[in-house]
Amino acid sequence: MPHHSKRATLSVLPLWLVHYRRENLSSDIVAGAILAILVIPQSLAYALLAGLPPQVGLYASILPVIAYIWLGSSSLQALGPVAITSIMTYAVLSPLMAPGSPQYITMAAGLCLLSGLMTMAFGFLRLGFLSQLLSRPVVSGFISGSAVLIIISQLKFLLGVQATGSNSWQSLLSLLEHVQQTNPVTLTLGISALLWLMLSRYGLVPLASRLGWNTKRAEVWVRVMPLVVLATASVAMVALELDTRHQVAVVGAIKEGLGGIHFFLPGLDDLRTLFAPALIMAFIGTVQNITMGQALAAKYRERLEPNRELVGLGAANVVAAFYSGMPVGGGLSRTAINLAAGARTPMASLSAAISMLLIVLAGTHWFARLPLAVLAASIVVAAISMIDLKAFVQAWNYDRADALALLGAAAGVLLLGLELGIATGILLSLVTLLVRASTPHIAVIGRIVGTEHFRNVERHGVETIPGALFLRIDESLFFGNLNAVEARLSAELMKDARICDLVLIMSAVNRVDTTAMEALTDVNRDLSARGIRLHLAEVKGPVQDRLLHSPLWKALSGKVHMSVNSAFETLAAERRVDTGLYVI
Amino acid sequence: MPHHSKRATLSVLPLWLVHYRRENLSSDIVAGAILAILVIPQSLAYALLAGLPPQVGLYASILPVIAYIWLGSSSLQALGPVAITSIMTYAVLSPLMAPGSPQYITMAAGLCLLSGLMTMAFGFLRLGFLSQLLSRPVVSGFISGSAVLIIISQLKFLLGVQATGSNSWQSLLSLLEHVQQTNPVTLTLGISALLWLMLSRYGLVPLASRLGWNTKRAEVWVRVMPLVVLATASVAMVALELDTRHQVAVVGAIKEGLGGIHFFLPGLDDLRTLFAPALIMAFIGTVQNITMGQALAAKYRERLEPNRELVGLGAANVVAAFYSGMPVGGGLSRTAINLAAGARTPMASLSAAISMLLIVLAGTHWFARLPLAVLAASIVVAAISMIDLKAFVQAWNYDRADALALLGAAAGVLLLGLELGIATGILLSLVTLLVRASTPHIAVIGRIVGTEHFRNVERHGVETIPGALFLRIDESLFFGNLNAVEARLSAELMKDARICDLVLIMSAVNRVDTTAMEALTDVNRDLSARGIRLHLAEVKGPVQDRLLHSPLWKALSGKVHMSVNSAFETLAAERRVDTGLYVI
Repeated sequence: MPHHSKRATLSVLPLWLVHYRRENLSSDIVAGAILAILVIPQSLAYALLAGLPPQVGLYASILPVIAYIWLGSSSLQALGPVAITSIMTYAVLSPLMAPGSPQYITMAAGLCLLSGLMTMAFGFLRLGFLSQLLSRPVVSGFISGSAVLIIISQLKFLLGVQATGSNSWQSLLSLLEHVQQTNPVTLTLGISALLWLMLSRYGLVPLASRLGWNTKRAEVWVRVMPLVVLATASVAMVALELDTRHQVAVVGAIKEGLGGIHFFLPGLDDLRTLFAPALIMAFIGTVQNITMGQALAAKYRERLEPNRELVGLGAANVVAAFYSGMPVGGGLSRTAINLAAGARTPMASLSAAISMLLIVLAGTHWFARLPLAVLAASIVVAAISMIDLKAFVQAWNYDRADALALLGAAAGVLLLGLELGIATGILLSLVTLLVRASTPHIAVIGRIVGTEHFRNVERHGVETIPGALFLRIDESLFFGNLNAVEARLSAELMKDARICDLVLIMSAVNRVDTTAMEALTDVNRDLSARGIRLHLAEVKGPVQDRLLHSPLWKALSGKVHMSVNSAFETLAAERRVDTGLYVI
Repeated sequence: MPHHSKRATLSVLPLWLVHYRRENLSSDIVAGAILAILVIPQSLAYALLAGLPPQVGLYASILPVIAYIWLGSSSLQALGPVAITSIMTYAVLSPLMAPGSPQYITMAAGLCLLSGLMTMAFGFLRLGFLSQLLSRPVVSGFISGSAVLIIISQLKFLLGVQATGSNSWQSLLSLLEHVQQTNPVTLTLGISALLWLMLSRYGLVPLASRLGWNTKRAEVWVRVMPLVVLATASVAMVALELDTRHQVAVVGAIKEGLGGIHFFLPGLDDLRTLFAPALIMAFIGTVQNITMGQALAAKYRERLEPNRELVGLGAANVVAAFYSGMPVGGGLSRTAINLAAGARTPMASLSAAISMLLIVLAGTHWFARLPLAVLAASIVVAAISMIDLKAFVQAWNYDRADALALLGAAAGVLLLGLELGIATGILLSLVTLLVRASTPHIAVIGRIVGTEHFRNVERHGVETIPGALFLRIDESLFFGNLNAVEARLSAELMKDARICDLVLIMSAVNRVDTTAMEALTDVNRDLSARGIRLHLAEVKGPVQDRLLHSPLWKALSGKVHMSVNSAFETLAAERRVDTGLYVI
């Protein structure tokens, strides 16, 4: 894919179109058509998850996608309804009004519009780096927690029961209260679909490889299975008249063609309600989009422009707002299907959008009798795959603090909801950062006899100079770890009252911020008053550039040495002169 | 001062008392008496600042101090009313009820009690490290902003005008509206006192040194001056009958002796109101106390136990709550007086507390006619000294990001008040941290010809190996800077399509967190798929300890080299073998 200019310019035609190569056309068109067909089940399902009429999931795969490929920068990310923003819409709005009602739809559109505008603003203000506020374990915990919330929200469709509640746990309680009203036919449909999809997803390919079948063909079947399940269910519904005779809930009649463009302006009160959720949704969308975009860019040797991506994503959501407010984002499974189907450029997404348009125009009457229980089953299967236990185990083995942050993020979502869950996640990421930085590794070091190499006195047998303390700080110096450094300094100086030279080895100190510079200046002055000289050794280039003009440099009681060894030699030589003896 | 045990044990008698040496006694007793007398003006003034009856400032210098020296760990910090917690009490409570009224006093006591309990909890939970959440520039900006708020709050006393408002700016507006009601006598008193104190504080010592007088004696005069000013003002008040004839506001009648112990329990509603302010006050007190404690410990070769300090500070505030709710903390000027007066151990503080008790018992009738305008003038002079422009200039020259954080913290306090100002400060400290970490210094390096040393290809003339890229990352790897690292990697690889070996030099990488480890594993896999081997060189001990058991280590496509030079030699040798030529 050709080089995009670095500036977030909005050229009239996107560069990928201007530089389009004819040989990619057939691949892209076919990939797009395949994508459109295969994502019908998830598009309907995610609309259901968001509490919106299922057909808006299809609409959201048309014009928003065109806005994205026009303004965004990734060539292979496939945009559409995604799980987390859908459950978020539901979680924000369902306590306030009945899902599916006109007011609900209007508010969902308002939420989508606001969050789209905010995402575009993030892009224009080059705030893409904010996606780095979360560590991977925290993102994983957040997604796993959200997956549990998603599963809880779908239970009522699987059971065919009415349940209400202003948060997940209240609706779970309400569900348990009404559990006797479970419709056995609905439940059978739902559980069957669930088992079928689970077996397909987790068992088909291993089975194929064990039986010696073509695994690639098996993989194709796994992707097509949701469509097969839906089609089978519809047939069963019609043949057995399950909706009329057994009150199995269905999608219901869908207006033919494209829903009209809704004009609305959220009122001031609505804005106040929607502001924080829209901001969180914009942030979540940012994190998801940039994370996936980078993974793709690395794999496919592309250059990703994060801030341009955000403009595209935001524009897509603004457009989506006018088609009944289904928020969109970069979908993991959607993109995987896109790639597997052979997409090469964004033309595939254009082809998918046009294909979906044709599908919608052709006729959506066949969706009318789709059982909601089966859609819910496909959502539950997708959610189960979002729960990542492996990430927890890996974090536990590598860095326990990260594993605890993961648990904390998941717990935050489960107990406090999505918005506070994200805030908890950000807080945990930053707190682990600070806690680690507060405990820098500091080593007293000496010279390995007969060499010019220096090591921790605890690790190896080394020689030291009496009265001189060599301290290496393995961390950048900033306000967060100064206390630890000063405490260690004091502790070491208290151990040995004869110390009159303190050498700070700065080879691993990548930065010294203002607080650290001032603190070192104070340390220098206090040590001076006690007759101890402070020296610096192996100060890095960028650090020295700054320190040169600082008060510390001028006031330093000792010298600045180019290497640890020259500091060692200098101080040893001084003592030889002082004592008149050879100290080796 | 003897070594305290590391655990926060509460022995019945503090160790400094158990190990007390007779020869310090006279110094300490004298220092304490001097301290008590010299801090009378500021104790009265800070009580006024807090909106409480002035005498509680004296009470707060008695029993709370005893609680602190019994439980705390610093031997030289002098506890008493301080500016920031006083203005905070005022800012929190004055919008709700009239300062000085019985309800106000009860609420102030509740605030003091809550914040004292929270501070003790911080100490027991070993949360002292939280004081590191703020960089020095941010603390400086916060204090400067608070100083401006303090000055604004005292203007009405200087003018002798009634002003009301729920925040500083509203009261300023109210003041301007009523400015015609200024009492000229009050104003004269106030401005005279102000000028006198300013000249004394900033002019006396320079004048003495220019005239060849004894500067040490001049310094003593500077410390005594507030007392002189107050005494002179009282005399003027009595002699000229300024309070009766010219309506100059005075302290008013003070109950003799010690105020009784008030028992109260804040109601649930009150708790809800006071919770957040108490938490912020506990945090501010923590930061102030630990910062000052460390400065003293460094200077006087003590070991500070931050969490023990917090228990002492919290206990002092709990005790203070029962004496009309004047919060206390480690005061900068108070401690300076303590040291200048010759204190050697906490016995000096005990002596000061007893001296203050005697003063209060002896008779406080002479305070009754102290003009508030003069007290206000002394507060304004203290506040002016809190505004630190030098810190801003220094930060601006050293690290502009820190300077902007300073301005942001000051603006946060001025525009949003003390509580949101602190929150803004914490946010700014963390954001500067993240922004810096997001822009790590990464260098492509090569070998200086004829040596074993490696340098940035931009800085020096170096030799490189065709097809091999040596990249040194000058920063620990964590979730915050991964994007930048990956972006740089991609950029470098795009420049040269022949690269088949990428060596990451880890000598400056102090940590690799879970997110970074997983990202490197992904990078390794993606590079592998493109035929590029990933090598690591000079991995630090603690980093290698963790990475050894991680997926990255097993999957690494290239080797792990002990030094950059051995990596260079190995890759060069492979190419010689491949091409059959000598590449020098």
